[in-house]
Amino acid sequence: MSKKTVKFGLVGAGTIGKGVVDLYKRNGNLINKNLDFNISLEKVADRDQERLQALDLEAAKLTTDAADIIDNPDIDIVIELIGGIEPARSFIARALENGKHVVTANKDMMARHGQDLIDLARENTVNLFYEASVGGAIPLIRPLKHNLIADRISRVLGIVNGTTNYIFTHMAQDNLSLDKALSEAQRLGFAESDPTNDVEGLDAAYKLVIMAQLAFGKKAEFDQVYIEGINGVTYEDISYAREIGYTIKLLAIGEDLPEGLALRVHPALVPLEHPLASVLNELNAVFIESEAAKELMFYGPGAGAMPTATAILSDVVEAARCIQGNISNGVVEKKLEETGFVPIGATEARFYLRFLVEDRAGVFASLANAFADERVSLDMIIQKRSVGDLAEVVLVTHAVKEEAFQRALSKVTEISAIKPDPSVIRLLN
Amino acid sequence: MSKKTVKFGLVGAGTIGKGVVDLYKRNGNLINKNLDFNISLEKVADRDQERLQALDLEAAKLTTDAADIIDNPDIDIVIELIGGIEPARSFIARALENGKHVVTANKDMMARHGQDLIDLARENTVNLFYEASVGGAIPLIRPLKHNLIADRISRVLGIVNGTTNYIFTHMAQDNLSLDKALSEAQRLGFAESDPTNDVEGLDAAYKLVIMAQLAFGKKAEFDQVYIEGINGVTYEDISYAREIGYTIKLLAIGEDLPEGLALRVHPALVPLEHPLASVLNELNAVFIESEAAKELMFYGPGAGAMPTATAILSDVVEAARCIQGNISNGVVEKKLEETGFVPIGATEARFYLRFLVEDRAGVFASLANAFADERVSLDMIIQKRSVGDLAEVVLVTHAVKEEAFQRALSKVTEISAIKPDPSVIRLLN
Repeated sequence: MSKKTVKFGLVGAGTIGKGVVDLYKRNGNLINKNLDFNISLEKVADRDQERLQALDLEAAKLTTDAADIIDNPDIDIVIELIGGIEPARSFIARALENGKHVVTANKDMMARHGQDLIDLARENTVNLFYEASVGGAIPLIRPLKHNLIADRISRVLGIVNGTTNYIFTHMAQDNLSLDKALSEAQRLGFAESDPTNDVEGLDAAYKLVIMAQLAFGKKAEFDQVYIEGINGVTYEDISYAREIGYTIKLLAIGEDLPEGLALRVHPALVPLEHPLASVLNELNAVFIESEAAKELMFYGPGAGAMPTATAILSDVVEAARCIQGNISNGVVEKKLEETGFVPIGATEARFYLRFLVEDRAGVFASLANAFADERVSLDMIIQKRSVGDLAEVVLVTHAVKEEAFQRALSKVTEISAIKPDPSVIRLLN
Repeated sequence: MSKKTVKFGLVGAGTIGKGVVDLYKRNGNLINKNLDFNISLEKVADRDQERLQALDLEAAKLTTDAADIIDNPDIDIVIELIGGIEPARSFIARALENGKHVVTANKDMMARHGQDLIDLARENTVNLFYEASVGGAIPLIRPLKHNLIADRISRVLGIVNGTTNYIFTHMAQDNLSLDKALSEAQRLGFAESDPTNDVEGLDAAYKLVIMAQLAFGKKAEFDQVYIEGINGVTYEDISYAREIGYTIKLLAIGEDLPEGLALRVHPALVPLEHPLASVLNELNAVFIESEAAKELMFYGPGAGAMPTATAILSDVVEAARCIQGNISNGVVEKKLEETGFVPIGATEARFYLRFLVEDRAGVFASLANAFADERVSLDMIIQKRSVGDLAEVVLVTHAVKEEAFQRALSKVTEISAIKPDPSVIRLLN
């Protein structure tokens, strides 16, 4: 009996697109050996001829017109890898309306328009697959959908941005300033020439929205994520953190609280014995806290052409299985509930605070009063180093509501002996 | 439109079986909310009436006869949780022949008869699901089957036995002997009253066979796994290991080598910076090395009623989706190749060796000659502690073929000044 063939096309032949083509060329036979059908790459579209030529495919498989894939009746599955919102969103919508399954790695689009497109897919009895949009090669979307379907997830903690994790790792290991570590990351290809999206936390926030919806089954909005980048973190902070048993990571944190979802991205002190603390360099990990399984972690490369291509091709195979099996609900997309949001001010955290202060009588009393007024109690005080005439002070608070801490902080920074711009970093609790 | 219901039955109401019933009672509605069909628990069988009563289900759902489930035409999916080889194997075979999908957590049976049962399932166009057989709640089987289908895995490293990991963790943290740590584990329910299967490495070996077949797509045999338990590891070894930057773990190691599969379970020194080093207490993790994704790790609770129940119910949902979609190849079981096996003697490792020696002239020369004869070169020598009149010596070799090391070791132990029964532990390379 000859095996049926499911045909897929690829729109966007950049780094990841080329990775998909390369991995398919290398392992396509291996994949098909294990299936009772074949998958076959029919066509690749990119506006840039040079990119197409670099794929080293026969000319008949190359096109500069995405419509040759999106509107092609011979193609069953479309991979979208052009990135950004438009024309990616319109292309995906058109492919779904044409009855094609779609595979994407587009995190900003999934964070902003994912639900509309998933609804559109359902209307057209096809599926939208996006395993590669969070965590690169790390199996994450499928485990969240399938393996944890019987569990209730309460919190998701992610190191989901490789650039910032690389920067923090090398600040700590090589005693570097943030600027030096960033330059080094750029030189080695772990940071883009314009690193804004990574360094300011936007990339992590997109991924958080996607994960939170899957984990909690509730609607999350990008605009409701509190986002703080890594620019405020210095080598001195990393060094003090280590001294008190912590490392610093940029965390994407999603919590399903009684009042609604609390979503935030910010640098955090992570206890050295927490599994997330040993996630180094450009690697990513997502830690999940739940009712029945209690704790799970998924770890691996969050980016890179080849790792991301493994996730994309696994989605192509799942889409092909849906076609073979005539199943429209192959991906078990949860029906999202509307829910409230908990603003950052209403969440609780412990805080690390480092500042320089003129060493004169009465300063500590003013400081203590500012905290006492807002009922912020201190867990730790370190003063052991001088910078010129100034004393360096590190404080760690007990758990306190964010807005109370911020009020106390305003009062503290008004004390004339305390120099402006203290370092303020939350602790993972 | 009313939703169709897929009915499942459960054979075996022990700890895990009760966990499945409890989790279904708690979260069944949540599961069904996210599906376009319902799953429904129809019947539970156990020979022990007391266990059945403890489930707190209506009497009509309870039976002491497994046939009421296996041969029941109303039941679509059978969960087997009686454990052991027989009658579990026969029950599963009969259920498959009756056209039912089967879900099992039975690792020893899957390691010994899994392939035959998977073939039998295929013949009957149904599937056998076994996510819970390795790593409890950790998504592992499904990621290996689906997410990594486009990748080539070269090595699997697992901490897959919670009892031994708990013992090693507490020997290290609380400075305990192995016996004391084992008693503590038994007291807290992390070790069984007869811990043989765990402590001697059999449990880990069963799981290794299951993982190796999935990871490499090649046939693995339980009898070809080299198995060494944890009894030879002392507190002193753990302490020395830490001093040189390692921790000790019981590892299940599978490698896909040009000459065939190399499968082994033994204690190993794991570098402290390796992600597996921070897997503590009863937790499990599986670390995967592959061509495209490079490195992935899956971490979580490897046992326990509730965690294991999440894996079982996720399998029930996948089985139900197969029934709904009329798909027989829902699980993408790889067609296993026959392959050779690499015996432990032909593998390479670095070795840690600790022994007591009479402190007299010429001993080190004899020792050095024994190693030199077999071309075993040393990376590290520590001698700093005396035990009575004897000196304690710790050596670490460079990478060497196992059989050459064993020959050298025989010669070393023949030296009269060296006391018998040295500690010998491989390093993870």
